[in-house]
Amino acid sequence: MKSPIAVVVLAAGAGTRMKSALPKVLHPLAGWPMVRHVLESAARLKPSRIVGVVAPGAKDVAAAFAPHSRTVQRTPLGTGHATKTALPALKGHRGPVLVVYADAPLITTATLQRLVDACRKAKSAVGVLGFVARDPSPYGRLIMRDGRLERIVESRDADATEKAIDFCNSGVMCLDGALIGSLLGAIKNDNVKSEFYLTDAVAAARAAGHVTIAVEGEEAEFQGINSRAELAVAEKTLQQRLRAAAFEAGVSMADPDTVWLAADTKFAADVTIGPNVRFGPGVSVASGTEIRAFCDIEGARIGRDAIIGPFARIRPGSDVADQVHIGNFVELKATRMGRGAKANHLAYLGDADIGAASNIGAGTIAVNYDGYGKWRTVVGADAFVGSNSSLVAPVKIGRGANVTAGSVITEDVPAGAVAFGRARQVTKKGRAAPLRAKLKARAAAAKRAKNK
Amino acid sequence: MKSPIAVVVLAAGAGTRMKSALPKVLHPLAGWPMVRHVLESAARLKPSRIVGVVAPGAKDVAAAFAPHSRTVQRTPLGTGHATKTALPALKGHRGPVLVVYADAPLITTATLQRLVDACRKAKSAVGVLGFVARDPSPYGRLIMRDGRLERIVESRDADATEKAIDFCNSGVMCLDGALIGSLLGAIKNDNVKSEFYLTDAVAAARAAGHVTIAVEGEEAEFQGINSRAELAVAEKTLQQRLRAAAFEAGVSMADPDTVWLAADTKFAADVTIGPNVRFGPGVSVASGTEIRAFCDIEGARIGRDAIIGPFARIRPGSDVADQVHIGNFVELKATRMGRGAKANHLAYLGDADIGAASNIGAGTIAVNYDGYGKWRTVVGADAFVGSNSSLVAPVKIGRGANVTAGSVITEDVPAGAVAFGRARQVTKKGRAAPLRAKLKARAAAAKRAKNK
Amino acid sequence: MKSPIAVVVLAAGAGTRMKSALPKVLHPLAGWPMVRHVLESAARLKPSRIVGVVAPGAKDVAAAFAPHSRTVQRTPLGTGHATKTALPALKGHRGPVLVVYADAPLITTATLQRLVDACRKAKSAVGVLGFVARDPSPYGRLIMRDGRLERIVESRDADATEKAIDFCNSGVMCLDGALIGSLLGAIKNDNVKSEFYLTDAVAAARAAGHVTIAVEGEEAEFQGINSRAELAVAEKTLQQRLRAAAFEAGVSMADPDTVWLAADTKFAADVTIGPNVRFGPGVSVASGTEIRAFCDIEGARIGRDAIIGPFARIRPGSDVADQVHIGNFVELKATRMGRGAKANHLAYLGDADIGAASNIGAGTIAVNYDGYGKWRTVVGADAFVGSNSSLVAPVKIGRGANVTAGSVITEDVPAGAVAFGRARQVTKKGRAAPLRAKLKARAAAAKRAKNK
Repeated sequence: MKSPIAVVVLAAGAGTRMKSALPKVLHPLAGWPMVRHVLESAARLKPSRIVGVVAPGAKDVAAAFAPHSRTVQRTPLGTGHATKTALPALKGHRGPVLVVYADAPLITTATLQRLVDACRKAKSAVGVLGFVARDPSPYGRLIMRDGRLERIVESRDADATEKAIDFCNSGVMCLDGALIGSLLGAIKNDNVKSEFYLTDAVAAARAAGHVTIAVEGEEAEFQGINSRAELAVAEKTLQQRLRAAAFEAGVSMADPDTVWLAADTKFAADVTIGPNVRFGPGVSVASGTEIRAFCDIEGARIGRDAIIGPFARIRPGSDVADQVHIGNFVELKATRMGRGAKANHLAYLGDADIGAASNIGAGTIAVNYDGYGKWRTVVGADAFVGSNSSLVAPVKIGRGANVTAGSVITEDVPAGAVAFGRARQVTKKGRAAPLRAKLKARAAAAKRAKNK
Repeated sequence: MKSPIAVVVLAAGAGTRMKSALPKVLHPLAGWPMVRHVLESAARLKPSRIVGVVAPGAKDVAAAFAPHSRTVQRTPLGTGHATKTALPALKGHRGPVLVVYADAPLITTATLQRLVDACRKAKSAVGVLGFVARDPSPYGRLIMRDGRLERIVESRDADATEKAIDFCNSGVMCLDGALIGSLLGAIKNDNVKSEFYLTDAVAAARAAGHVTIAVEGEEAEFQGINSRAELAVAEKTLQQRLRAAAFEAGVSMADPDTVWLAADTKFAADVTIGPNVRFGPGVSVASGTEIRAFCDIEGARIGRDAIIGPFARIRPGSDVADQVHIGNFVELKATRMGRGAKANHLAYLGDADIGAASNIGAGTIAVNYDGYGKWRTVVGADAFVGSNSSLVAPVKIGRGANVTAGSVITEDVPAGAVAFGRARQVTKKGRAAPLRAKLKARAAAAKRAKNK
Repeated sequence: MKSPIAVVVLAAGAGTRMKSALPKVLHPLAGWPMVRHVLESAARLKPSRIVGVVAPGAKDVAAAFAPHSRTVQRTPLGTGHATKTALPALKGHRGPVLVVYADAPLITTATLQRLVDACRKAKSAVGVLGFVARDPSPYGRLIMRDGRLERIVESRDADATEKAIDFCNSGVMCLDGALIGSLLGAIKNDNVKSEFYLTDAVAAARAAGHVTIAVEGEEAEFQGINSRAELAVAEKTLQQRLRAAAFEAGVSMADPDTVWLAADTKFAADVTIGPNVRFGPGVSVASGTEIRAFCDIEGARIGRDAIIGPFARIRPGSDVADQVHIGNFVELKATRMGRGAKANHLAYLGDADIGAASNIGAGTIAVNYDGYGKWRTVVGADAFVGSNSSLVAPVKIGRGANVTAGSVITEDVPAGAVAFGRARQVTKKGRAAPLRAKLKARAAAAKRAKNK
């Protein structure tokens, strides 16, 4: 049996270039905090442990690692030092140890697996992920000989021949768990910044007579994020991956560049998505459903053959059954729409439970908040709620009941009943002219007063 | 006089890679089913007949060809065989026969015309549209000699010299109507898939001593669509064409990449369109009108000097006259807005007829649906409908009438009348504190109950 | 001390390719009329005067130059002639005179400053801004010798050696104010169009024994705008500049390509902006605020730690204090929201003043317009306005008052009071079935009548 993998995630960097109160690795990407992408990629390797290395006082970052263990790097003395702080948490681990970066969230499980597999095959002490860089100038070069990694030359130390090499160091490494302690111990800080660089583990391993290797990945997977602009570039890369996967799953998107997906958005086949649709985390959409243009959907299940939008907002906790129609300028929040129910125009349904085949009229508000508590509105199946109604929760509208347009409903309506909550119309003939004369005079007087 | 043209449209492919219940050639592109683009490009050649070749049981595809004739290809035995099934429908036709593909919808009339013209001039038996491919590797190469097409070499059969040729076969052909029967009859299926390939008509014609030619077109015109991703790429190409035409017509688009046009969208000069506007099929917009950001418009005529949006939705059957204002979160459906009428904020006007210069207040709903029928609301000219009103159709508001804010109108309002349909205000001094105390206690009790 | 700078802005071109009633240089770019970008770039040089040269009758263009002086070019006789018409307005000016173009709005202050500095250093009579063109074929070439500009060769007059030069003339010039009169006087119109070209000032200066120089800038800065398509390209360039600056300032944008900024949009650090947000002119956003997807904001101040959108519209004259929440399908117009106030769902607040910590319910309308005048709604602090209410302005809701859901409020509500303006609910048991039967029969009858 193969020895288990451990993963060390370095997350102690400062991130000052973000100019943000939020720690860098918690900035959102495709609906998840940045670090979660690395954690998910790592978790799919089924490692025996994941260890986060965080800065002192970074409680929110540490919390993002739960339920994995994390250690605190007291002083920022470089990546080698950061990795060393994880050693106590790796006690007893003898298999491969991957070192990845919380601020390089585009790394894929497949690439990490290839590195581990290659390290196992070569029985290497250290394996490094490299990439062919479009512009190698900022990166350390991986000097290969006979299929092995001979050494890493930092860009500033490279001679002309080495500078011409475009195979570069990503920083992601796999170290032999039986050797990691001695390798890290051999790293020195005799450099300008007096830091301990993890990169030097390669030289340390070579000096001790061990094998070191490099495995090639795609440059895009290794993009580090240090600024808001780089965050946006990473978001774009992730979105392109997610959109390609959606196409493969049988989703149509008229303009994929304007469909924003979350890392966990789930689609069945034959879903159609118009331009300008944003999915927050936690959405699933079943087959045959059409999401029209200009929708914002988060934390919701959408059933089969539903029509959503345009201009619909569906908020967390909502459950939309098959064949439901949610139309323009309609907001659902923590609301269940039963099979075939409709809310097609300008409505707010918050904390509501709408029965199957019921129709919610235009302008209807489920009045869920009274300033202190949030209350539920329950509408039975086959009910008809007239336009511009206010359903003052907690309130129940029974199965097959009718609420007339413009009603304020404060008491439960039994099944099969008709509820009115509106005044009777009074029409005063010939009164528009004098009313308008009065309003006109008022406006004129106000204008005169203003100009005085 | 020139002999008339016939066009055969091959539409019998399976399209399994779309993963869709909808037949591939009916997937929408710029607001039309894919096949309609090919049919329109063909129709502009004014052919004497268009023949669709469809798969057995593909009723919806066959229907999309109406009023043109279509034949059914009983078994999928290749493009040569498919074309042969069209022969009965071509009986008596002696002029050029174009063979085009329902799943390659970007072909233009101009390119087809150039092919026909060249075939006529060269008196060729077969003419092929070719293109210079960025990556020729997947395509058959067109081997030219002395300005004539000598033969087509499939990619897998090409030698090194032929592989270096980047002039490729699009599959689109023009065959001499007097020879098409004999040419198709000469095609054999002695290949791996045992299919009859239309491409082999070239060799058949050469073997019979006829002239064959090739005419160059743009690669983009020949893109075939086999997956959702390719559908999106074709949509992008089409949108770019449509946007370029709109710019030429004198339309301003601040961000053209976020304006989605239908193939039939019509603009006068001096129309301004903000970012994020979607036009479904059937829209025309007259001069001087501004469509602001975030609008969705379909099946509607928009007059001159109107202001639409932001966040307006105009649905089919709507007619918006000159100088109308439609503001944010307003939906029109099958509604006529008279000259200078305004509905500026949060309103639903369905099945309504709003007179010239009338003002529809914020939050107004034309209550057009009672659960069984759809009814019309008619508002005369120069009327004033107060905010948050419900106009319960069928109902008429007369010319120059006023409806007060918050009214539910269930009976017709005569011209010049004032209608009230709301309760009188009752104010209870000092009652907010006890009310709030009660609500607060209720919320606290609910919380306690929940935590139990 | 350095002699002061003058700037001549040529704005007399016709712009017929725009196909627009609006003069070309007034077409909007990033929220400003095109010419304003040039004026702002010029103004940052702190010139002693700016002179606009406009066409006869172009009142709106002339007005756009205010408070700067402008002169009218009576007949369109070329750029040299246009510049000459500015001479009277330059009377007594001895320092550098920059000539720039109102329809090339991407020029930056930094580039203009470099030209002026180089001219001063070289004591040149004429300095020209040049650029290395991707495709030099349409442009005049700058022939340099010994670091000086020897001459400008028009593309049509260039020989093979000159055609190979890719350093091109932008048209932007800096002339010595003491010489400008004699230089322009020496320009002749002995060419095909019989026009006076400013370009010929170089030859005139050389003929008189003066020094002429060229300074290199970026091609993108010199893009002229002659069509709607070029306008869109310039908008894209400007947006990319503005977005890059926003990133630098510490703004997060998940998809920067769908955030449209105005030239004067102001952001504090740690602002987060979702996809699809449009900023019109005159917006500032304070730190910690999140603008969610699908918002349209113009002429408004947004405070700290506010949450705006998705689907919010904020119109000019609005002032949104710290910690305010503005939710979906909510429109503010000339409305002040006090600290911590909330309007989270489907509401129109026009000409309103909402007190701190007040809650505005879903569907609330501030009824600000009566057909003649616009009136203000004033809501005190800590008030609670129930859903679907209509506040008929002018009206005041006192501090700590409650307005019940569905109320029409036409009279002031004192502080601490509860106001009702709605009918009491009446429920009729068992009446839904007969009502529905009646409605169903009505629909059936209408259908029969229609089919007759």
